[in-house]
Amino acid sequence: MSLILYERVCSDDRRPSPYCWRARLALAHKGLTPAYRPVKFTEADLVAFSGQSKVPVLVDGESVVSDSWNIACYLEDNYPDAPSLFGGPGGRALTRFTNLWVDHGLQKALGPILAPYLHAVADPDDRDYYRRTREARWGQSLEQLVARRAVYLEALDPVLEPLRQRLAESPFVCGERPAYADYLAFAEFQWARSVCDQDILAPEETALRAWRHCMLDLFDGLARTVTAFDSAC
Amino acid sequence: MSLILYERVCSDDRRPSPYCWRARLALAHKGLTPAYRPVKFTEADLVAFSGQSKVPVLVDGESVVSDSWNIACYLEDNYPDAPSLFGGPGGRALTRFTNLWVDHGLQKALGPILAPYLHAVADPDDRDYYRRTREARWGQSLEQLVARRAVYLEALDPVLEPLRQRLAESPFVCGERPAYADYLAFAEFQWARSVCDQDILAPEETALRAWRHCMLDLFDGLARTVTAFDSAC
Repeated sequence: MSLILYERVCSDDRRPSPYCWRARLALAHKGLTPAYRPVKFTEADLVAFSGQSKVPVLVDGESVVSDSWNIACYLEDNYPDAPSLFGGPGGRALTRFTNLWVDHGLQKALGPILAPYLHAVADPDDRDYYRRTREARWGQSLEQLVARRAVYLEALDPVLEPLRQRLAESPFVCGERPAYADYLAFAEFQWARSVCDQDILAPEETALRAWRHCMLDLFDGLARTVTAFDSAC
Repeated sequence: MSLILYERVCSDDRRPSPYCWRARLALAHKGLTPAYRPVKFTEADLVAFSGQSKVPVLVDGESVVSDSWNIACYLEDNYPDAPSLFGGPGGRALTRFTNLWVDHGLQKALGPILAPYLHAVADPDDRDYYRRTREARWGQSLEQLVARRAVYLEALDPVLEPLRQRLAESPFVCGERPAYADYLAFAEFQWARSVCDQDILAPEETALRAWRHCMLDLFDGLARTVTAFDSAC
């Protein structure tokens, strides 16, 4: 069976996309090793066969699946004998809720902090596109976002609180072992360390940092195998 | 088997505490009907037998359980043949995460909106205590909180987004049927309608309003059996 994951690539072979890390880690959780096909921001035509323009796209033999949540559900349903990503029907429903919290809470808070750094490591071909779309999203220049970094870090702090509290009482979001909700949250931190040389976590974030360390070690250090700012975490 | 739930009471027999509603709805989900013992803010001695001072406290024969999460886990573990509150081990882990999101996200955003209204319906004996503790918590007078209501409602809007998105795609947070994560979120709305005659949801919040309506109808309209501002939802 041939497995291919189309994912975002930036300069120096960086793989910053949190959506693509969700898929990478979900595949690893299921014991699957895909071939990776890098796609620049301006190469949407490479995944046009999937009927849409975004990554990740998973090709599994005859099956083509886009959207990270669809990919997670596809893997859970088609590889039922491998470890579960959700831990049962209640787990699937609330993993979806956690996904929406990551998308609309955590990621939204990280976006203005990381966007200027992602621009700096974007493929040179992609930088104009990236600057235009991100400046439109936040209604200010990337330079203005950098100048307000401290403000955005302060706004991130309360957003992290549910995760901080959970990881103070449990080694993983999903309990004693990591599962998809951990990958959802960790993918955001992997995005951060892929693009930014300054850690988004303060030194005193003991529980979050210990969890991030464990997540980096998973699957023989899969998240450490790509170009990133190791100084950032 | 005698079941007793100690819960907060305010004037006109109102039962606003979201923590107590979590326990009320969890008991109903398990098909259990407790006797309710009302406790004013200043009557902590009534639950001193539980080794702490807060409600809810559940007494089930010889067992005494305090803290809403402990009560939910107690019910799940001791009434395994009744419908599950969590939907499996993955569900339990992420229900806990959802609990922390409600505590530190949703409830934190609602607090300054609802506190002045709760003061108005608190038992007359409790009002001085309530004003003192809440004004200390937010560092401003209850009157200042009222004056800034629009600011706090604006801050609530993005906090609701994960819930809004989830309920736009699914009838309940937990999927096709409600479970404990629904009770966690709904208990905050029940708190709101117990104390405030102005709806915290805008008319265009279709998905959230439809879900709230379904939650009010559950268990023969359990949440409608207490004094509340029906005009508010």
